[in-house]
Amino acid sequence: MRFHSDNTATVCPELLEAIRNANVGLAAAYGDDEWTQRLDGAFCELFGTEVRAFVVSTGTAANALALATLSPPYGAIFAHEAAHIVHDECGAPEFFSGGARVTIVPGAHGKLTVDALRSALDATPPSVHTLQPAAVSLTQATELGTVYRPAELRGICDLVHERGMRVHMDGARFANAVAMLGCHPSELTWRAGIDVLSFGATKNGALADDFLYRRKRAGQLVSKSRYLGAQMLAYLDGDRWLAMARHANRMADWLAQAIGRLGGVRLPLPVQANEVFAIVPRTLDECWRARGARYLEWPGEGPGTDAVGEDERFIRLVTSFQTTEADVQALVGAADASPAA
Amino acid sequence: MRFHSDNTATVCPELLEAIRNANVGLAAAYGDDEWTQRLDGAFCELFGTEVRAFVVSTGTAANALALATLSPPYGAIFAHEAAHIVHDECGAPEFFSGGARVTIVPGAHGKLTVDALRSALDATPPSVHTLQPAAVSLTQATELGTVYRPAELRGICDLVHERGMRVHMDGARFANAVAMLGCHPSELTWRAGIDVLSFGATKNGALADDFLYRRKRAGQLVSKSRYLGAQMLAYLDGDRWLAMARHANRMADWLAQAIGRLGGVRLPLPVQANEVFAIVPRTLDECWRARGARYLEWPGEGPGTDAVGEDERFIRLVTSFQTTEADVQALVGAADASPAA
Amino acid sequence: MRFHSDNTATVCPELLEAIRNANVGLAAAYGDDEWTQRLDGAFCELFGTEVRAFVVSTGTAANALALATLSPPYGAIFAHEAAHIVHDECGAPEFFSGGARVTIVPGAHGKLTVDALRSALDATPPSVHTLQPAAVSLTQATELGTVYRPAELRGICDLVHERGMRVHMDGARFANAVAMLGCHPSELTWRAGIDVLSFGATKNGALADDFLYRRKRAGQLVSKSRYLGAQMLAYLDGDRWLAMARHANRMADWLAQAIGRLGGVRLPLPVQANEVFAIVPRTLDECWRARGARYLEWPGEGPGTDAVGEDERFIRLVTSFQTTEADVQALVGAADASPAA
Amino acid sequence: MRFHSDNTATVCPELLEAIRNANVGLAAAYGDDEWTQRLDGAFCELFGTEVRAFVVSTGTAANALALATLSPPYGAIFAHEAAHIVHDECGAPEFFSGGARVTIVPGAHGKLTVDALRSALDATPPSVHTLQPAAVSLTQATELGTVYRPAELRGICDLVHERGMRVHMDGARFANAVAMLGCHPSELTWRAGIDVLSFGATKNGALADDFLYRRKRAGQLVSKSRYLGAQMLAYLDGDRWLAMARHANRMADWLAQAIGRLGGVRLPLPVQANEVFAIVPRTLDECWRARGARYLEWPGEGPGTDAVGEDERFIRLVTSFQTTEADVQALVGAADASPAA
Repeated sequence: MRFHSDNTATVCPELLEAIRNANVGLAAAYGDDEWTQRLDGAFCELFGTEVRAFVVSTGTAANALALATLSPPYGAIFAHEAAHIVHDECGAPEFFSGGARVTIVPGAHGKLTVDALRSALDATPPSVHTLQPAAVSLTQATELGTVYRPAELRGICDLVHERGMRVHMDGARFANAVAMLGCHPSELTWRAGIDVLSFGATKNGALADDFLYRRKRAGQLVSKSRYLGAQMLAYLDGDRWLAMARHANRMADWLAQAIGRLGGVRLPLPVQANEVFAIVPRTLDECWRARGARYLEWPGEGPGTDAVGEDERFIRLVTSFQTTEADVQALVGAADASPAA
Repeated sequence: MRFHSDNTATVCPELLEAIRNANVGLAAAYGDDEWTQRLDGAFCELFGTEVRAFVVSTGTAANALALATLSPPYGAIFAHEAAHIVHDECGAPEFFSGGARVTIVPGAHGKLTVDALRSALDATPPSVHTLQPAAVSLTQATELGTVYRPAELRGICDLVHERGMRVHMDGARFANAVAMLGCHPSELTWRAGIDVLSFGATKNGALADDFLYRRKRAGQLVSKSRYLGAQMLAYLDGDRWLAMARHANRMADWLAQAIGRLGGVRLPLPVQANEVFAIVPRTLDECWRARGARYLEWPGEGPGTDAVGEDERFIRLVTSFQTTEADVQALVGAADASPAA
Repeated sequence: MRFHSDNTATVCPELLEAIRNANVGLAAAYGDDEWTQRLDGAFCELFGTEVRAFVVSTGTAANALALATLSPPYGAIFAHEAAHIVHDECGAPEFFSGGARVTIVPGAHGKLTVDALRSALDATPPSVHTLQPAAVSLTQATELGTVYRPAELRGICDLVHERGMRVHMDGARFANAVAMLGCHPSELTWRAGIDVLSFGATKNGALADDFLYRRKRAGQLVSKSRYLGAQMLAYLDGDRWLAMARHANRMADWLAQAIGRLGGVRLPLPVQANEVFAIVPRTLDECWRARGARYLEWPGEGPGTDAVGEDERFIRLVTSFQTTEADVQALVGAADASPAA
Repeated sequence: MRFHSDNTATVCPELLEAIRNANVGLAAAYGDDEWTQRLDGAFCELFGTEVRAFVVSTGTAANALALATLSPPYGAIFAHEAAHIVHDECGAPEFFSGGARVTIVPGAHGKLTVDALRSALDATPPSVHTLQPAAVSLTQATELGTVYRPAELRGICDLVHERGMRVHMDGARFANAVAMLGCHPSELTWRAGIDVLSFGATKNGALADDFLYRRKRAGQLVSKSRYLGAQMLAYLDGDRWLAMARHANRMADWLAQAIGRLGGVRLPLPVQANEVFAIVPRTLDECWRARGARYLEWPGEGPGTDAVGEDERFIRLVTSFQTTEADVQALVGAADASPAA
């Protein structure tokens, strides 16, 4: 009953197999190996256009390097108030960019809208005294488990480009969004106007040189890079990335339906990816935890009109490619002993 | 009828006289001249305690250097949403600190409160993933022309120190606050718990070395510093700084009363320093501008419940040591021809 | 016949095995897993004192994070002119520290000496106008394949500490140095006065908090960190790290003796670790490359009095735990057809 | 007998007069006043081409802002080992650029040469692992009182531009160089290929926007900027800047001839601007200091083959627009009592 985070899962066996297969003979270091060299091609095929892929060791590094490439040190980067770059990167965007500021934009369900973004941009008219609007960063799927549709992305990108700015997509759960919408990856990225995607791949060739040097000086150019390249290739191979995301989404859907039927449980957010947010009776929360379930209590007062009551808890449950039906049934079963159920 | 900003006024004649008097003979450079050397003493006397004074060329530099001394590069600096460091310094705090983030706190009348600050601090529980709460910056008098009383400052400083953080005061209008409250400068600074004041003077001796090197590498250690030192000494001499502020405050008070009597004019904020905020009929605004009055239209929708109507304008009028009764009467007189008056 | 770099070797099978063993069940993310937790203990045992270990993804990140912890942004970091942080990190030390400067110190055989360091330090007397001397970084084994003995390290550390500065050791080839000297790891680190070692381990507990946040904001806090922890544990287990280094050193020694007997080959540097520098006839170099040997041509004119002639090449050959006697014999055999041999 | 530094002189009376004249009426802040607005025109006329002028408060800020505009954060900036940006700016170039590195180039008489620069550039072949060569900074007149001729500048600029880099001139003593050579200011700047001059004026319009925001966030956009603008206009008016420099140069020339005739005094460097370097008997140095002369002892062992003996001192004497013949005669007269004279 581990629904804490996708980061607690293991690595899928095929990736380990890929590492083992790459562990033969000598290979050029720092990205000149054959595995890394094949990455650009694999991503071009995946996205149906020319892209450049840069492998780094963490999502924080990917986001921060991308934003540093899009914003001058005196730039403003607009992001949703729930964004990972706002809460969970210890100032990496500021660090990598040399001092750009992350400006917060509100929005329901973890999503930016054209109107909210326009208001935020209009609130800082051009002046030498303010930070210069440079980029917008949005997350797909969002930190609240919701998904932007292609038309929503196009609307945002059009506005941002009109203002001479650029758009970064934090694709930490990009696979879950593609799996949910059933569309082609290009429809959620370059065809919608996204300039850089933190999947490791950048659409905009002109930015690649800057990225190259920034990655190195950030200590993110790995010497034995074949092991990263091999993993990434195995991840893309046969659409494994998508199959894994589809499974996680299906489990989240199932989990939502199952706990939604429990007494006193409310689901304040649509479940569109691999995250289920729930407001549950305090007693149920305690019962679950006592029986070993692992998940996060979510900070804040509940989204929109769904305020969390005094005897309630706002929680987040995350599924992964390893979550099984048995995990879900165990959680539901564990609720039986709860007074509220 | 110039009420645009205190920055449009001239320098008072006594300061020019001081520069002329300093312009005799050779003097050691980079702060080793007698004028600069006397500054520490003058500020110690003014504040009634040991302080170190560092002269820099702009308020932006003073604020940013102070904050860089108080916050690590991975620190969070909390400030009111109307703060100068938020809107008008083009990212200087981020730049000087190496990437610290300015986190916005809401509050009526341009002021931080203990409750609002506690909520903001509690919203980011300690974690390696977030920026580390390091400092609070407040402005005295505030950007909205209001003033913190000593007890308010003590409450804020106590909370901040309990959390192991430090307090910076942007004293751009410190003189106006002292003049308004009639208290000793120490009651608004170190006795209340302020760690660093951007008046050029720092209370906390332990920070001085860091400040010294940061000032130099920021290009703020002026070689012929006697001219800055001499001006600052003349500014402090015989409480000239306070007399100038008292005059500006009195003119603002008078101005508020005078325009407050005009038809359709509302004063949504208390007038406690040298700034008057007013919601005026659009026709009056046009009439004033047509007759040469100069002042700023303030962005936003009006504070608190005082929403700005469609046929209204939200404006800011600033007085200085040079504002005369005649200036105020001219503005009131200019309103006579306005249809709304 | 691959003697290009240690980075071209594979990972040893025991490390892959360790990864596979860690790939079972769920584990807490971001370093709270059991593997990472055991690391501190393993390093404490290895060094015979209290240490903190931080795993990062590259040597460049390890060096730059360590130096940022030792130097303020206005600090000077002294290093040998051949140091990796000088030539091969694309400005990472400057980036991570927020602008500290790497100051170059000359020295024979890739090594700093007490005298050269004292001259460099004395050349910049304390002044607010200069960068403040903050740290010395030395590499063990050096970039030229030589090794500092404990007494040499103590001399340098004593001088540096007298000046109120601190010492960083880039331990990229630390294992080779321990293997060569046959001494305890502590004699080359904390007992000699080293403050921080880029092996992932820091001796100085007081610096650990700063390191923690800097690592996160540098995008170096890996989420599924158990895989890094497991590798590192396997690397330390049963002194595997030392056995691997001993083998590489022995191969380098053998290689040096073998090619030193070839006609026209000079060895201008002592061979003390896993690097062999040689000045070879141009014809031999061409012959070797034609037959598939891989190694680096070293920039510069040759160390000390060993100038490189017009018909000569200055090359570097590196051995690893995978280098075999057959590799060495193949290289020597390939020289037979060379006109010079 | 003050020959310590040009910074110890007063401001010339005409500049104070200009400040007084600007101190009338209200004026727009932050550079929108008429004085600052006229500056661009005045500099265009002076240099005979389109330029943009940005006034800042110190030479350190001017240099660091210019270099930050020319170099990315992962750039290398090449400068002479005696350069002000190397020794006397406490890391400002690194700070303003976000981590670029100042790389030292040797050269006789304080000057860069095409050959020395080419060697330095060739020593760091292009690679993702090294800092990217971005700019060269040279000082005119140099820190050792020598002057680059137009042809020398053209040679350097041609080489730098071939490499895709740009040239910055630290014009701290630019006036002395123009006065010495008797040529048009354009011949020493844009006609020779200089991209940016730290006189406050930049030739390259494309860089101006970046400079604008960087200046603001560095706390260098002064609010009451009319006082800076008025001073600069008075400085340019009627070629006052040049007349002042001519006088200082003439005094330096005279001083050099006068002390060159004293027993035991050697002049190891050509005197081309307002600095005189001399190796003098220790007894003469002591005698001068005892009689109140003020000047700097210069660090180092003497330039070129002129090693400083045990009983000698290497000193620097600087003249300014205020130095008089009487000052020079007083120094020479003070030498009479010296045992060595």
